[in-house]
Amino acid sequence: MAELGEFGLIKAISAGLVRNARTLVGIGDDAAVLATPDGRVVATTDFLLEGRHFRRDWSSAADVGHKAAARSLADCAAMGAEPSALLVALAAPPDLPVSWARELTEGLAAECARAGASVIGGDTARADSVLLAVTGLGDLGGRAPVLRSGARPGDLVAVAGRLGHAAAGLALLTAGAGPAGAGPLDTGPLIAGQLRPAPPYEAGPEAAGLGATAMIDVSDGLLADLGHVAAASGVRISLASARLAPGDRLLAAARLFLSKTGSAARPASPATPGEVALGWVLTGGEDHSLAAAFPAGTRLPPRWRVIGQVSAGQGVVVDDQPRNGVPGWDHFADGPASG
Amino acid sequence: MAELGEFGLIKAISAGLVRNARTLVGIGDDAAVLATPDGRVVATTDFLLEGRHFRRDWSSAADVGHKAAARSLADCAAMGAEPSALLVALAAPPDLPVSWARELTEGLAAECARAGASVIGGDTARADSVLLAVTGLGDLGGRAPVLRSGARPGDLVAVAGRLGHAAAGLALLTAGAGPAGAGPLDTGPLIAGQLRPAPPYEAGPEAAGLGATAMIDVSDGLLADLGHVAAASGVRISLASARLAPGDRLLAAARLFLSKTGSAARPASPATPGEVALGWVLTGGEDHSLAAAFPAGTRLPPRWRVIGQVSAGQGVVVDDQPRNGVPGWDHFADGPASG
Repeated sequence: MAELGEFGLIKAISAGLVRNARTLVGIGDDAAVLATPDGRVVATTDFLLEGRHFRRDWSSAADVGHKAAARSLADCAAMGAEPSALLVALAAPPDLPVSWARELTEGLAAECARAGASVIGGDTARADSVLLAVTGLGDLGGRAPVLRSGARPGDLVAVAGRLGHAAAGLALLTAGAGPAGAGPLDTGPLIAGQLRPAPPYEAGPEAAGLGATAMIDVSDGLLADLGHVAAASGVRISLASARLAPGDRLLAAARLFLSKTGSAARPASPATPGEVALGWVLTGGEDHSLAAAFPAGTRLPPRWRVIGQVSAGQGVVVDDQPRNGVPGWDHFADGPASG
Repeated sequence: MAELGEFGLIKAISAGLVRNARTLVGIGDDAAVLATPDGRVVATTDFLLEGRHFRRDWSSAADVGHKAAARSLADCAAMGAEPSALLVALAAPPDLPVSWARELTEGLAAECARAGASVIGGDTARADSVLLAVTGLGDLGGRAPVLRSGARPGDLVAVAGRLGHAAAGLALLTAGAGPAGAGPLDTGPLIAGQLRPAPPYEAGPEAAGLGATAMIDVSDGLLADLGHVAAASGVRISLASARLAPGDRLLAAARLFLSKTGSAARPASPATPGEVALGWVLTGGEDHSLAAAFPAGTRLPPRWRVIGQVSAGQGVVVDDQPRNGVPGWDHFADGPASG
């Protein structure tokens, strides 16, 4: 990459990008200009750091692009906005192949396309490892932004998208139970959940249109993220474990994970596959699903699963019990939370 | 910083920040919401990396905040926009003192206040060195964006703000001729020019209002940045060295620099203080001044100095001569360009 130089790299990257209709000025000037017909813009910025959020031996460059874009675009959707644009700051070692940067860009562009957004700007620099800082912009289309603070006693709590898949995928990768070591279990979908999360972007504006009172994207884990909603709203959120029962794929992955790691080696971890899988569902982050509160009686489209309700009080409980000792998901430098 | 954790750090940082009237939702939710009354938003993102763009033994935390904000906000101004907001992604070693992060925030906030903007969001992460990725947002207030591509033969070329000060300050620091080693010369203003550049933000919208045909912020050096304008516009830009003559302070700094480094040790560098200082003016980056083209006959306010004109052709010439061998400013990892 060093031989291309900064301008060559930007050129190589921008060649792979398509502008959407909102991009009035794209890459190549001092700044981009984006149409914001709503008269407001939703804006968020997130790191994606090698070694902390991805590993180049596990993730392809395209995977990293998808994941980087998903992190910020899901935050836009969680406000009730349609994602519209991405700015990407990429620092990389000089010996990173240019093909890696091109594939990264393809991943960014493909995830943007899923969300209806496009890459409108960025920066490049040299660093010892690959690091991205991605800014997502979105448009509210006349809707009020859905904050974390609006949940009210009596509201339903529902989720759109998967829970625990990214955590299960990471656990399998960490335990050496990737595709090669998985035996009969098809680990592909779970590992894809970790490497290339697919947030349900459309569910964000949909929830806002349905009158959602609070919303968050599940990036740190369901309990941790709903904890933010409960704290910001000054309410208690009660989840029903029966609504969160792990599916067969997660249970099979938990069995495989336990067989690879052995519960003796992990005395603090739960002993049964059911508990391991439920831990992934409750505390696994990075699925970038959307969790929202809705007024009681809201008729929800099928992609929203009711998982609990809001009452007076504080904190998050599961079957009326606090789950002590369940840390929030701290991404993967620290390994999966021991749900 | 490790003991505070991510949420504690965000709390400590956001406590030092003031929201401007455009900030509809600030730090603390999935994303910020910014009013964009123009119906368009100007957006740009830039790295500021320890070791490459700043050194913690030279820059205070507040300096780094000023510089990080200035980089992105000047890009907004160079489009003709009023800077309105900043998103700041900060990665830092766990042992970085919390006070450093607080002072950084004060610097960010103070530079935002100079520009009329405020910090509306961000992200934090752990890294081996301090790195920032800053996104600037701006509002065009009904003006057309001023691109790099609009300069036309016959236009005047003018600059608002200082040239060569940041480069001179860096040269002095590099040569050990900082305040302690400077003798009678007051190096303060030049070193401040490097550590805490002060872009003339208001000149950006002003230029757009005056009908500027092209504009750029001088971040890589006057010749390099006007080279981008010349290339994008398909024109030649001719500068007059008489209009760019270094002032007494730059000349004194050049003499001091040469006395510290010795021309024998730098056979490739120019021999005279005048040439060294002119090199800083022409190729020094990071002043974040604004350079713009205006239709001939435009009456320019005093802060704009006419330095040349646009003609048919290509490239940038000084007194009708190309300046061969003048590299663009590649920030400070590579030292000052040997103009």
